[in-house]
Amino acid sequence: MDEDVENGNLGPYQERPRTFPNMRSKSYTPLLFRIFTGINSRVLAVLLLLVLGALFYVGANTSPIVVFVFSICIAGFIFSAYLTRWVLAKDEGPPEMSQISDAIRDGAEGFFRTQYGTISNMAVVLALLILGIYLFRSTTPQQESSGLGRSTTAFITVAAFLLGALCSGIAGYVGMWVSVRANVRVSSAARRSAREALQIAVRAGGLSAMVVVGMAVIGVAILYSAFYMWLGVDSPGSMKVVDLPLLLVGYGFGASFVALFAQLGGGIYTKAADVGADLVGKVEQGIPEDDPRNPAVIADLVGDNVGDCAARGADLFESIAAEIISAMILGGTMAQQCKIEDPSGFILFPLVVHSFDLVVSSIGILSIRGTRDVGSKILVEDPMAILQKGYSITILLAVLAFGASTRWLLYTEQAPSAWLNFSLCGLVGIITAYAFVWISKYYTDYKYEPVRTLALSSATGHGTNIIAGVSLGLESTGLPVIVISLAIISAYWLGQTCGLVDETGSPTGGLFGTAVATMGMLSTAAYVLTMDMFGPIADNAGGIVEMSQQPESVREITDVLDAVGNTTKATTKGFAIGSAALASFLLFSAYMDEVSAFSHIPFKQVDIAIPEVFVGGLLGAMLIFVFSAWACAAVGRTAQEVVNEVRRQFIERPGIMEYKEKPDYGRCVSIVASASLREMIKPGALAIVSPIAIGIIFRMLGHVTGQPLLGAKVVASLLMFATVSGILMALFLNTAGGAWDNAKKYIETGALGGKGSDCHKAAITGDTVGDPFKDTAGPSLHVLIKLLATITLVMAPVFL
Amino acid sequence: MDEDVENGNLGPYQERPRTFPNMRSKSYTPLLFRIFTGINSRVLAVLLLLVLGALFYVGANTSPIVVFVFSICIAGFIFSAYLTRWVLAKDEGPPEMSQISDAIRDGAEGFFRTQYGTISNMAVVLALLILGIYLFRSTTPQQESSGLGRSTTAFITVAAFLLGALCSGIAGYVGMWVSVRANVRVSSAARRSAREALQIAVRAGGLSAMVVVGMAVIGVAILYSAFYMWLGVDSPGSMKVVDLPLLLVGYGFGASFVALFAQLGGGIYTKAADVGADLVGKVEQGIPEDDPRNPAVIADLVGDNVGDCAARGADLFESIAAEIISAMILGGTMAQQCKIEDPSGFILFPLVVHSFDLVVSSIGILSIRGTRDVGSKILVEDPMAILQKGYSITILLAVLAFGASTRWLLYTEQAPSAWLNFSLCGLVGIITAYAFVWISKYYTDYKYEPVRTLALSSATGHGTNIIAGVSLGLESTGLPVIVISLAIISAYWLGQTCGLVDETGSPTGGLFGTAVATMGMLSTAAYVLTMDMFGPIADNAGGIVEMSQQPESVREITDVLDAVGNTTKATTKGFAIGSAALASFLLFSAYMDEVSAFSHIPFKQVDIAIPEVFVGGLLGAMLIFVFSAWACAAVGRTAQEVVNEVRRQFIERPGIMEYKEKPDYGRCVSIVASASLREMIKPGALAIVSPIAIGIIFRMLGHVTGQPLLGAKVVASLLMFATVSGILMALFLNTAGGAWDNAKKYIETGALGGKGSDCHKAAITGDTVGDPFKDTAGPSLHVLIKLLATITLVMAPVFL
Repeated sequence: MDEDVENGNLGPYQERPRTFPNMRSKSYTPLLFRIFTGINSRVLAVLLLLVLGALFYVGANTSPIVVFVFSICIAGFIFSAYLTRWVLAKDEGPPEMSQISDAIRDGAEGFFRTQYGTISNMAVVLALLILGIYLFRSTTPQQESSGLGRSTTAFITVAAFLLGALCSGIAGYVGMWVSVRANVRVSSAARRSAREALQIAVRAGGLSAMVVVGMAVIGVAILYSAFYMWLGVDSPGSMKVVDLPLLLVGYGFGASFVALFAQLGGGIYTKAADVGADLVGKVEQGIPEDDPRNPAVIADLVGDNVGDCAARGADLFESIAAEIISAMILGGTMAQQCKIEDPSGFILFPLVVHSFDLVVSSIGILSIRGTRDVGSKILVEDPMAILQKGYSITILLAVLAFGASTRWLLYTEQAPSAWLNFSLCGLVGIITAYAFVWISKYYTDYKYEPVRTLALSSATGHGTNIIAGVSLGLESTGLPVIVISLAIISAYWLGQTCGLVDETGSPTGGLFGTAVATMGMLSTAAYVLTMDMFGPIADNAGGIVEMSQQPESVREITDVLDAVGNTTKATTKGFAIGSAALASFLLFSAYMDEVSAFSHIPFKQVDIAIPEVFVGGLLGAMLIFVFSAWACAAVGRTAQEVVNEVRRQFIERPGIMEYKEKPDYGRCVSIVASASLREMIKPGALAIVSPIAIGIIFRMLGHVTGQPLLGAKVVASLLMFATVSGILMALFLNTAGGAWDNAKKYIETGALGGKGSDCHKAAITGDTVGDPFKDTAGPSLHVLIKLLATITLVMAPVFL
Repeated sequence: MDEDVENGNLGPYQERPRTFPNMRSKSYTPLLFRIFTGINSRVLAVLLLLVLGALFYVGANTSPIVVFVFSICIAGFIFSAYLTRWVLAKDEGPPEMSQISDAIRDGAEGFFRTQYGTISNMAVVLALLILGIYLFRSTTPQQESSGLGRSTTAFITVAAFLLGALCSGIAGYVGMWVSVRANVRVSSAARRSAREALQIAVRAGGLSAMVVVGMAVIGVAILYSAFYMWLGVDSPGSMKVVDLPLLLVGYGFGASFVALFAQLGGGIYTKAADVGADLVGKVEQGIPEDDPRNPAVIADLVGDNVGDCAARGADLFESIAAEIISAMILGGTMAQQCKIEDPSGFILFPLVVHSFDLVVSSIGILSIRGTRDVGSKILVEDPMAILQKGYSITILLAVLAFGASTRWLLYTEQAPSAWLNFSLCGLVGIITAYAFVWISKYYTDYKYEPVRTLALSSATGHGTNIIAGVSLGLESTGLPVIVISLAIISAYWLGQTCGLVDETGSPTGGLFGTAVATMGMLSTAAYVLTMDMFGPIADNAGGIVEMSQQPESVREITDVLDAVGNTTKATTKGFAIGSAALASFLLFSAYMDEVSAFSHIPFKQVDIAIPEVFVGGLLGAMLIFVFSAWACAAVGRTAQEVVNEVRRQFIERPGIMEYKEKPDYGRCVSIVASASLREMIKPGALAIVSPIAIGIIFRMLGHVTGQPLLGAKVVASLLMFATVSGILMALFLNTAGGAWDNAKKYIETGALGGKGSDCHKAAITGDTVGDPFKDTAGPSLHVLIKLLATITLVMAPVFL
């Protein structure tokens, strides 16, 4: 194909000389996949059947609920295989499209390989560290009574950690694998039918969403049932089932560890390339976005895949994993306190909820059909309305499924109406999710007052635009905090009044009620993730259309899809923070339970009136500020490298601007890739090292000053203050970024002087500032919050 | 004089036609001052003697320490009277200078009158509210045993509140009164001698600093001794002296209430005028700063006085008042726990420390002498070095004085070496203050790496400049938090190991150790405030020189002074936050003691694992974000009004640019004044209403759900999280703002293309964004943190 391009044989859309990347290298497939594809297909089929058989054997020995979960997950994977075939069957369009797409794929795969190579090395080091710690820690009374030795616990935790990391890596890879293949198919379809393009983008997003959610669920289920069988849980003299979920914490930690670096590296990559390309291309040279003359344009398009698709896949994967595990721990604790005869319903409830999530989201995805107007180049309906309709269907089904699961699993004779309270908790979660989506829409959509005011403030210059954007972002933290506060309190009280009481007769269902609300919030996660993945695919398709210089009508279609993608991306971020806030609160309780178990000292409260504990809080909040600073600064620094490289190419190769010379896309790609790998280390290390270091320092201080549990208390306060500051900071960064982006878009519709006016220039400044806010620091904070919660859980032994 | 101006009779410096403000109105003096000045001087002298006699009579009946404090304060006032005479004896310069200064004075006095009118109305309403609450609240056991009825407590609290508010108002008025008189004298002196100009600015700053600190000290001392005598403290059957300080809390609340609105109103005024004037003048029309053709220039100069002088005076006043009262409460509590025979040493220690502060700072101020180079137009030494030398002298003396006071007052036979530990705590505080000053200098001075990097990032555009500035600000929270953490922990442990033990034998001096560290930090407050007040006076003098179009050599001198003022302003902000952080932590402990006393339930811990308490924390942190948002947005909105007015004047009166027509300065002044009065209400009301409302709501919720003290606990957590977030946010806003300002100044020295380059334009954008950060939202947060602490103390009865 490269030769065709070199010879100028560019198919039917050629209007002027064009340049294309010449970087096609051997496609990269991770080792695991290569092994799979290398095996004879019959052998593979037999192997697969064997694995399935083993799975169901283990599941059947654990609980019928686990069998149900396995079946649904496997059905989900079959559904995604169907979607994969469906998407891949679509054509890749003319050669100029597929060449661009090949370049993007190469860049994305290359970065993924190096990035995940670095991450896996770090994961192995961390795994050895965990192993060392667990081999020397003291055992809990439960473990002693069940005969679980130190080395068993150590290997269990490390195995869970590595499995979590691996699954998260696979989730990220699938997200990227799909999007680098779907983008060109969407562009190609946009030449024929708007509706078809929309459908491909949705189904491609849906397929990776199904894999991500399915993997999170099946991973936990496999670990749970494997440990159940292996340790002979619930047989006399061995471990009790209610203590089992605590062994899964490593899985959540592995997942959030990988997600943090995926999000940091990908986020820095995508925004450094974007800001760098825009600063020289759009602002200095005045060429459009995604113009083939811009040497950084391929890097920018690669960034969408590694930053938005791969990273968001890993992010949602660990959100769901962390939430499932914390809810399982709390369910087990509550079941034990209330002396419920068969606690497995309470423990396995989260797995069932997410299995239903797979079912209802599949229906939602399928509801977006493309048959009606094949061939029409105009979208009859607003694509946002189509996605919204699918979301409404999914939510409606999710409410019904949630009610059914609570009745099935949470019904006990002790408290016959408890399931009803818990299904109301789920409803609280679903309403909260909806409110979050609505609030972030209100603050970031230019149909509403805030963004209009922001756009207006651009009329008085760059400075007032930034002041107004920062104020808007800071103010936008108000409503979500009120909503999440109402959700926590009302779910807690619904749980508390459900009728379940412990042996002393005091109500105990509160925390589990909050956990159920979190599940309700995430009960449509697969559909939400579909809408989120849709965004970068549409964005990439738009880039390919622009770069291959398709006719205006094709561009219009991808532009509309891209704009819809921006909105869905912004709203799902609100959703991600809301669930992170709730999940962290739950993990915090789990942490306190674990510390009590390890230290044999009741650990029921964290008292912020103790100076050291107050200092822990100060340090926790500071961690969030410094982490955000480093994430934003990394983007700024890398973008400056891109700017210098692009400027250099324009000066040294003056022919580029006249389409006479080919820009060196590859150099920009490699500059961004190596810079973002370098830059992700500092904030990532801060996030992982500081809670551990602070815990150890205060543990020693407590030892010297005679304060038992000081390390654990300080870490608890650090966690709490970091969570609160992290939620607020993430809300601020995401909303301000989204609002700046859309204020610019609003002006580009012709308002306040339109494109090219001074007002527009001021708005572009805001948009540039917003980029690292909303796509690097903000989303990294979602992950950081949960990482801190899981790291403290796993590392608890060193704080004691 | 106006006629002279109208006729063009403008004195020796006239070079081209100039316009001057025509706004001279009757000078405003507050009623209180008018009454004083209206009285016959002999009658006044007799009255004064009577008051003095009464003071010393009351003091002598309370404690010899109080007599000592009274004497020093009165000596301090006499010293400031001497400074006043010295400053006023300087000449006001040629008529064109004094006319500008008159216009500034009118504007400042007019705004002050309306602003403090509004504030006093609000204060009266609040006082009635407090009265109502206290008349219906339950009494504490101490009060019952001492026969202190409900109505007595109510009137005591309200009287303290009103006295605090009044004193804060006087402190603000004095700050402004001095600066509007000193500015023109500094400009005039700059024509003769650089050193003389410096000396006038320092002495003027010193005079208001002495008044502010002296008033804070004498106010508390008067209240203390008046209540002591009136309530017959320590006589059998009446109140114990250790419970007395809790009655003074109203004074701190009154002071911070006034300070918040002073800072908000003044901060919005000064930055809206500044940003508005710059956006049209500097950016659009390309005329220099403070050019007489700019219609907003007088408003800008007025802003320096009402925003920086009056507001900072009120801010430091309430810092010191809050810190003295919290330390007195903790000293009393500790003395009681340790059964110290005469606790008055511990209680009155803070008053003595600040009395010594007056003495050592006076010496520091006097050490800056102007005799050596009278007549020289060049500063032989760097003015910063001169101020620094004075600071070193002050610190050295403060260390000695601190050691002496600890030996004098904190020596007990129970723990003979305790005073040594406490003087080490004081040293910790002094070192902390020094570290804070150094850190903020490192992050905001262009001699160091961070600002240089920021300046460099301006080379790639407005966007990268803002990203780099935001990152710098967020990162700069790291070191101060570590320093303050070390300070809290080390001071606590020095206190804890001092040898003082309670009846059960457990050490109790920890919190008081932290309090002593705070006092150490504030032990040079008067000198620091002098350096701070110096800034706006020099800034104003520069404006007058520019507006009256003095020769270049004169401008150079005021420019140097102005630059030094910028640095001292930035560093004292770090100092203000550090002390606010420590003071809030102390007030938090006082709050918990008070709740225990009122509720008769031990209240020793705030447990953030309870959902409602966690929610309180979320709401507290959110309060900080939304408050900052509203403060910044207020500046943005008001600045837009100024921009529109200035643009209108330039269009409607084209003669302005050719010096042919006079701009309407008065209109800009009145627009800014009325807008900032309007805009200060929303954030101010948020700060006052939300903690009260949240406390009441959760009190009711706790009543319904059967959780005692829920309201008090939620408010405690709100307070703690708001303090932590507030410290971090204030550090971020102040440092980012200062760094942007100096990055611009660095480029203006000729670096990176110098004035007028694209890089400079990007840096101006950063500076504009930084203005509301560092001069409105940031300083308002210092006050807010302490206001929240005092409001919860005073309002505690309604949360129970």
